[in-house]
Amino acid sequence: MDAPLIAVLGGGQLGRMLGLAGIPLGVRFRFLDPTPHAPANAVGEAVVAPFDAVGAVEAFASDATVITYEWEGVPASTAALAAGRAPLRPGIASLATSQDRLDEKSCLAGLGIDTAPFADVHDETSLRAAVATIGTPAVLKTRRGGYDGKGQVVLRDADDATVRAAWAAVAGAPCILEGFVEFTRELSIVAVRGLDGHVCTYPLVENLHREGVLRRTIAPAPNLSDELAARAVSYATSLCEALDHVGVLTLELFETPDGRLVANEFAPRVHNSGHWSIEGTATSQFENHVRAILGWPLGSTDPIAPTVMWNCLGSIPERTALLGIDGVHVHDYGKEPRAGRKVGHLTVVDPSPEVVATVDALVGPTD
Amino acid sequence: MDAPLIAVLGGGQLGRMLGLAGIPLGVRFRFLDPTPHAPANAVGEAVVAPFDAVGAVEAFASDATVITYEWEGVPASTAALAAGRAPLRPGIASLATSQDRLDEKSCLAGLGIDTAPFADVHDETSLRAAVATIGTPAVLKTRRGGYDGKGQVVLRDADDATVRAAWAAVAGAPCILEGFVEFTRELSIVAVRGLDGHVCTYPLVENLHREGVLRRTIAPAPNLSDELAARAVSYATSLCEALDHVGVLTLELFETPDGRLVANEFAPRVHNSGHWSIEGTATSQFENHVRAILGWPLGSTDPIAPTVMWNCLGSIPERTALLGIDGVHVHDYGKEPRAGRKVGHLTVVDPSPEVVATVDALVGPTD
Repeated sequence: MDAPLIAVLGGGQLGRMLGLAGIPLGVRFRFLDPTPHAPANAVGEAVVAPFDAVGAVEAFASDATVITYEWEGVPASTAALAAGRAPLRPGIASLATSQDRLDEKSCLAGLGIDTAPFADVHDETSLRAAVATIGTPAVLKTRRGGYDGKGQVVLRDADDATVRAAWAAVAGAPCILEGFVEFTRELSIVAVRGLDGHVCTYPLVENLHREGVLRRTIAPAPNLSDELAARAVSYATSLCEALDHVGVLTLELFETPDGRLVANEFAPRVHNSGHWSIEGTATSQFENHVRAILGWPLGSTDPIAPTVMWNCLGSIPERTALLGIDGVHVHDYGKEPRAGRKVGHLTVVDPSPEVVATVDALVGPTD
Repeated sequence: MDAPLIAVLGGGQLGRMLGLAGIPLGVRFRFLDPTPHAPANAVGEAVVAPFDAVGAVEAFASDATVITYEWEGVPASTAALAAGRAPLRPGIASLATSQDRLDEKSCLAGLGIDTAPFADVHDETSLRAAVATIGTPAVLKTRRGGYDGKGQVVLRDADDATVRAAWAAVAGAPCILEGFVEFTRELSIVAVRGLDGHVCTYPLVENLHREGVLRRTIAPAPNLSDELAARAVSYATSLCEALDHVGVLTLELFETPDGRLVANEFAPRVHNSGHWSIEGTATSQFENHVRAILGWPLGSTDPIAPTVMWNCLGSIPERTALLGIDGVHVHDYGKEPRAGRKVGHLTVVDPSPEVVATVDALVGPTD
């Protein structure tokens, strides 16, 4: 067998971890990224070019076995161009739908998946109508762009001045207005769909965010009813099927006080809240994504034991301190330290409360 | 922290797996190997040059944090040259001793470690004297070179013609004559010694060879007395200490019908019989080697569950068949298929007898 070549749009830490999972399977990698020292360069050939450089994209894709993306911000036009040279998995539908908050919410709602109330906003009049229907507080989000809470305006009142200011703040961009969801916690589910349509899901996990950024994941989510877990599986499965998705897809959810499971958004890719699966399952989300897009059988997604994952923001605690803690797995993305930047993560399988407290103290507040 | 750079002499599959273990820790790798498509090139910078190319070796070593070797066939002069530019771990003593069968056996015997009877052979007269002392059958081995059973002559009789033919066969090379050891099985122990002198050991494993090549490892070795296990730990520990070894070292042993543990040889490096530790322990032999040579704390070597590792010789069974078996981990070294060549390995943690039988049938006879 000639070694398959996966050409990945994006060369960040997700690409790096895809490479680390795929190389043992005999897969070669190539990464397209505009930055010269992208994290994934350690595990494959680097093509340093902007995503809109037609010639570079075509060359990048030309002899690939399959093309995939590790960042949903990749322009759909770039993905479509690459898809002219080799199969793109997941496909354009998954990418494009996830890039437009209105299409995304409409897709979810159309599948009978519970979401926050939402409305299309394209001018001040439609914003006023949306506020009247949905009420306040509500959040105005641009349909495209924005990440980790950026590009959003919260409307606390329905008065004219608030509406006018909010519309001005988004500078005429097409938007969606979303009602607030009262929730008890944030959950997510990572699913993977094979080329043959078979879907496997990882257990639902609990995510702790701070300032809009994931800090800690507990897998599986504790104190979860079987019914809720089954509902999440059903949501993720129908979403994968509706998009004819191949590969990993992650659905972010809120659990509400009245027992609802409200979908927030989905990512058509491996996800920060699935990093625990590297050590916490027999087949990580990265390996299963590789298997899926190459048409290979999927591996077990069963948890080995309860697992905790911490993000390292800005910098990674001192190596010697971390590795001196029993069971700590360090994942350094090879990025320059910078305030707020995701530069690595830590995982412990089956940690004692003492180990959790020790790691908490090293990485700083997680909630 | 600037990313540490490990410069590895040799770019085979052991280097590849060192890289896969070290990259998540934020380590960069560089590999010196004479072959242009070495397996390790997927995970680091490749320096393609012969081991005796002085300029290339110096450049390879110049800005490294630490230098290591993944093959004990690396010329000691090359290692010494590199060691002039950055710390070499393990050191020259470990490498040089393992390269000379007489020095190796003398070192082991000097530490009170049980070995086969052996004698120095440097001419026909000394061979005759050695045969008289040791008896037959015995095996004449060149002191240097040879691998997986190559470069060896078995003497079944003590008569003059046999002795003369054996001496002619080794063409005047300095040799060692070793008595045969009657054994019930082959075992090995992987140890790792930190820069601070702390030694950790993986559990003793059972190895099944066929035609002189490792086919299967069962970890931990079944039906092992605590006393025997403790003796193996004591042997490996004293050997690491005697050599002032830093990093992983592997000691190959025979278990005899009368309950002895006879040392065969040691490898001053990560070892085929330790590959199971990638999935079978929290910290693989590769990660612990990286940690040790960088002066970082060592991680747990406890087995997660009984684990079986199979070598793939010549070629790797069809990917879809392998990945369809629950729990099979595939490690493809990215080498061209060739009869008898180690091209990959498979690992299953806690396999059922059915899974073992299925994998056995795919990889062919293992004993």
